[in-house]
Amino acid sequence: MTDPEPSGVRMPDSTVEADLAGYRREGLIDPPATRDTEPHDGSGRVEMTFLPAERSVRVPPGVTVFDGASWNGIAIDSTCGGHGTCKKCKVQILSGAVPVGRLDARAFTPDQLRDGWRLACIAQATQNLRVHVPPLVTRPKAATVGVGRQVILRPAVQKRYVELDEPTLSDQRTDLARLTDAIDDLELQADLHALRRLPKVLREADYKVTAVVVDEMLIDVEAGDTTARQFGIAFDLGTTTVVATLLDLTTGTPVAVRSMLNRQQPFGGDVITRISATMMDPTALDRLGTAAHETLAELSAEVCAEGEVDPAEVYEIALAGNATMTALALGIDPEPLGVAPFVMTCATPPVVLASALGVSVHPGARAALFPALGAYVGGDIVAGILATGMDRDKRLRLFIDVGTNCEIVLGDGERILSTAAPAGPAFEGGAIRCGMRAAEGAIEVVKLGEDVELGVIGDTTPMGICGSGLVDVVAELVKIGLVDGTGRFVQDNEAKAAAPALADRLTMIGKERVFVLYRPDPTADPADSVYLSQRDIRELQFAKAAIATGWSLLLEEFGVEPRDVQQVLLAGSFGSYLSPAAAVRIGLVPRLPVLRIVSAGNVAGEGAKMALLSLRERAGAAALLEEVRYVELSDRSDFNDKFVDQLSFPT
Amino acid sequence: MTDPEPSGVRMPDSTVEADLAGYRREGLIDPPATRDTEPHDGSGRVEMTFLPAERSVRVPPGVTVFDGASWNGIAIDSTCGGHGTCKKCKVQILSGAVPVGRLDARAFTPDQLRDGWRLACIAQATQNLRVHVPPLVTRPKAATVGVGRQVILRPAVQKRYVELDEPTLSDQRTDLARLTDAIDDLELQADLHALRRLPKVLREADYKVTAVVVDEMLIDVEAGDTTARQFGIAFDLGTTTVVATLLDLTTGTPVAVRSMLNRQQPFGGDVITRISATMMDPTALDRLGTAAHETLAELSAEVCAEGEVDPAEVYEIALAGNATMTALALGIDPEPLGVAPFVMTCATPPVVLASALGVSVHPGARAALFPALGAYVGGDIVAGILATGMDRDKRLRLFIDVGTNCEIVLGDGERILSTAAPAGPAFEGGAIRCGMRAAEGAIEVVKLGEDVELGVIGDTTPMGICGSGLVDVVAELVKIGLVDGTGRFVQDNEAKAAAPALADRLTMIGKERVFVLYRPDPTADPADSVYLSQRDIRELQFAKAAIATGWSLLLEEFGVEPRDVQQVLLAGSFGSYLSPAAAVRIGLVPRLPVLRIVSAGNVAGEGAKMALLSLRERAGAAALLEEVRYVELSDRSDFNDKFVDQLSFPT
Repeated sequence: MTDPEPSGVRMPDSTVEADLAGYRREGLIDPPATRDTEPHDGSGRVEMTFLPAERSVRVPPGVTVFDGASWNGIAIDSTCGGHGTCKKCKVQILSGAVPVGRLDARAFTPDQLRDGWRLACIAQATQNLRVHVPPLVTRPKAATVGVGRQVILRPAVQKRYVELDEPTLSDQRTDLARLTDAIDDLELQADLHALRRLPKVLREADYKVTAVVVDEMLIDVEAGDTTARQFGIAFDLGTTTVVATLLDLTTGTPVAVRSMLNRQQPFGGDVITRISATMMDPTALDRLGTAAHETLAELSAEVCAEGEVDPAEVYEIALAGNATMTALALGIDPEPLGVAPFVMTCATPPVVLASALGVSVHPGARAALFPALGAYVGGDIVAGILATGMDRDKRLRLFIDVGTNCEIVLGDGERILSTAAPAGPAFEGGAIRCGMRAAEGAIEVVKLGEDVELGVIGDTTPMGICGSGLVDVVAELVKIGLVDGTGRFVQDNEAKAAAPALADRLTMIGKERVFVLYRPDPTADPADSVYLSQRDIRELQFAKAAIATGWSLLLEEFGVEPRDVQQVLLAGSFGSYLSPAAAVRIGLVPRLPVLRIVSAGNVAGEGAKMALLSLRERAGAAALLEEVRYVELSDRSDFNDKFVDQLSFPT
Repeated sequence: MTDPEPSGVRMPDSTVEADLAGYRREGLIDPPATRDTEPHDGSGRVEMTFLPAERSVRVPPGVTVFDGASWNGIAIDSTCGGHGTCKKCKVQILSGAVPVGRLDARAFTPDQLRDGWRLACIAQATQNLRVHVPPLVTRPKAATVGVGRQVILRPAVQKRYVELDEPTLSDQRTDLARLTDAIDDLELQADLHALRRLPKVLREADYKVTAVVVDEMLIDVEAGDTTARQFGIAFDLGTTTVVATLLDLTTGTPVAVRSMLNRQQPFGGDVITRISATMMDPTALDRLGTAAHETLAELSAEVCAEGEVDPAEVYEIALAGNATMTALALGIDPEPLGVAPFVMTCATPPVVLASALGVSVHPGARAALFPALGAYVGGDIVAGILATGMDRDKRLRLFIDVGTNCEIVLGDGERILSTAAPAGPAFEGGAIRCGMRAAEGAIEVVKLGEDVELGVIGDTTPMGICGSGLVDVVAELVKIGLVDGTGRFVQDNEAKAAAPALADRLTMIGKERVFVLYRPDPTADPADSVYLSQRDIRELQFAKAAIATGWSLLLEEFGVEPRDVQQVLLAGSFGSYLSPAAAVRIGLVPRLPVLRIVSAGNVAGEGAKMALLSLRERAGAAALLEEVRYVELSDRSDFNDKFVDQLSFPT
């Protein structure tokens, strides 16, 4: 079974009406009840069987395949959360008929429709169905490391080996006092688990034991000298990608790194769709929490296996995530984050055990969660500020984490301002006709000269465009003059004059002008190619204008000019793969020499690692809550004016 | 079905051999396999069915009825924990035969044996059995209140009603900051449960909410003004009896009090048998913990029901228990408490949630557990010291909690000494021929004059003697001259001279001299009566000598004479019912005017209540760890000499 090209092939609007009429004639719409169907058993339920898992679920007739799957923990790709907008939830109906909907006609070729391909979010089951679910891309290309700083190794976790005197009738000190008297530089308390272990371990090990301490809490005693074995896991809990790094806390070195797609993905690609899910479905908060916990648990197990570390040797975890991810992982209702006035439940998360986040490591291991500056400048950004030293570097620096929500920080080591700009899904390939995530087959680099030169993830046949490819192609089109400063494709004659070798790639699909990036063969229908449409450019313009408005308002607030910025840090998975030259060219960042634009990588993950390795850095993160001022953009009367100013491309 | 008299009727040793021969002839020993039996099914298991519960369990052949029952949570009375010494585990075999054992012949009359009565701890099941289990006395006579002090009402639990401004884009403080800013006299932190509730409750209640705070932890927010409703439960977790008091924390008044037998009872009557159980059976620690939790849970439910309080309105519990009870409730191995050098795991228990002790109240409710001074001077005594003001009263006072383990405290408001004396089970009716707990049918008061005057619990037919009755009868016998200063029954001629009206009650059962207290009718066999034997007097002498050695060593350590003591406080359930005059007469307490001897009642429970009502008192309890010096008796070379000195009765 071959999956259709995930995102590359789309039907333009103009052809849809004619096609629908044709499909009706073919019986693909309103199919006869007898065709290919297994009638349902009349009990008020129909059965959906999902392949390849071979899992069956029974649902009321009319439930969509997407809901049936996601209620039962079967992940179907989606960035919109099942609302018919992202067109990523493609499944193949193997038996049982589902009529072709209007959105299906846009999303699939006629052959695909005949083969049973449908969008799961609109495919209602009125009879028993067998459904093939393409595997989710669970390992997208992601930055797992980033710009960090050397820290002084002083983890919260400490092990102390002690040899104690045995008790006698003249020395009846309690087991705990005997131990803590030997570690008198710490004011130790003990948790219940440690107290349960203490009497047995002390006596079995002839009073030669290793105390396991986190902060000043004794969480365990181990027989003999185990001081060489102490580990922690740093998590970057991203909306899209989750990265886990297993650290050896005796040396500060990473032992294993793994990343995977956040299992919350089926609820939607960005925080807003996930928050909406909790508002519409009372069970969603629990299910999102469980999905986050499963993601963290799977990664923990993987890094421990890879590093040959017993999970019980992991005594602390640190986690950086945005405010919504943190709330969901803690089971805190995120609704107030999603609606004005965008309020967090708390800035500093409570101290919880790792087990409360679903992570099975040492039972006494606690989770150090990063605090957040605002509903849209969360713990991941605090971690990024920490990692990049925004609070200590004396240069004027601008930190931009590009994503659906774009976080922007400006600082000079004295003052720090932060804000968030709603960039929308363009950079994640959402709302872009041939857009896709940065996975195998995505065009991520584009050079336009005598010909089109494409960099494709996995060096394979292009299937779509990811965010960095989108920025690249638009920047190149502006550079060679096929797109003007307002973002419009130029007329054909202007195109021929500006770039004769590429002008014929400017063509029409339906009523829309497009630039074809990749065509399987010269005779193929343009609609079967990977292309950039006029509307795609508009989407990018809106996204970059939101970001540019953000940093320009921060610069104004700071009383400095764009040219004063000495360094721009592009953070996050997407920022890391963005071409600095292209970012400057489209105006996503201030117009600065390219060398001042730096890809910072996964700075949230770096911050989480630093917190695990150094109590001082952790205290630094907490101090940022006081040091960083949050500027709310949606409150600014001048936002719209600035936004319009930023829509055009610099020329 | 009538139960046999629980403890009143015992067969003296001399008759046992003859009887066993008789039972063998009757077929009660080595019964033919066909008699009254249900053959077991050959699968290597036999079935025991317990009535009246009608619960069946399948066990390997040879398992005792006691073990089969206690493994399955069916409580059979026992103070020795199933080791054949207390003879309290009487059951009736209704079908299936169990041969009469040597201990059975001592414990039951021939008619009872023929009716199938056996001791459960020696009754091995070799075939299927139906077993009647007499109901446990789950509500023994117990002091639920005691000597306490008025305290300044300042509980750890506080409720604050606040009306908050709604957030706006220009006031995006977090929900938590909005709340804590309004309660700025406290440095509030919030637990995860409270944070999960906060966003919803704030918005649903239009920002008019009541914050529930324990210490400085926000554990909940409630819609509207609920400040009038705040409760706590104080527990006295005794080895024998558990008492729960529901307190209204707004007024400091008790709302409901309940007590019941500790469900750990089937594991043995005193702390040593329970510790032994954990040493011999790896599952016992868990099972003892569960039994304690069930006891606390049942009492909580009862006091809440009686007080018409929703368990969710109980925001804190306080618990006073001895070191073993506290360890078992927390799941901490008590073994080191039971063997020299008698070491505790910790003196101050960790902070745990009430739910960790099995108590279902508010999910954020924590348990304040009393710290302990030593393995045998536990949190119950610290609570008692607190309640009786031993740390502040300027008089020289002696505090004695009489029990299997007897705790003794001596103080003058400046210095405080404490110790523990191993008194053994005599005061709980253990090892006393006609001994029984202070339950219905127990002789608790004895006056000897022209006749025998008995006070019987429940004003019913006497069935045995409880601890206070034992002290009374021995004191009276000494007083009237039927027992001499060495503890021996006087010769018959001396008896006739000393107490002509009572001398004929001095008689023989088997080879042992006894004093008959109650005989069903004048013609009845003395063995069917309730009596005091020479050996019983010896048991009491050992018990009181241990206690007297304890306080005399403390007085010596303090540098004072017994006559300097200005008040003696008799604490605990047993101490409360003890006659001060009798206690003086047998030398259990120093020879002082009777008015200086005071029954203090359940001072452990009073201390627990004070801790719940006053943070200051709770801090006072913690301070006692530094203020009270523990004196270990088993370390004293002069213990044995002193002990022998104290064996005789004062004359």
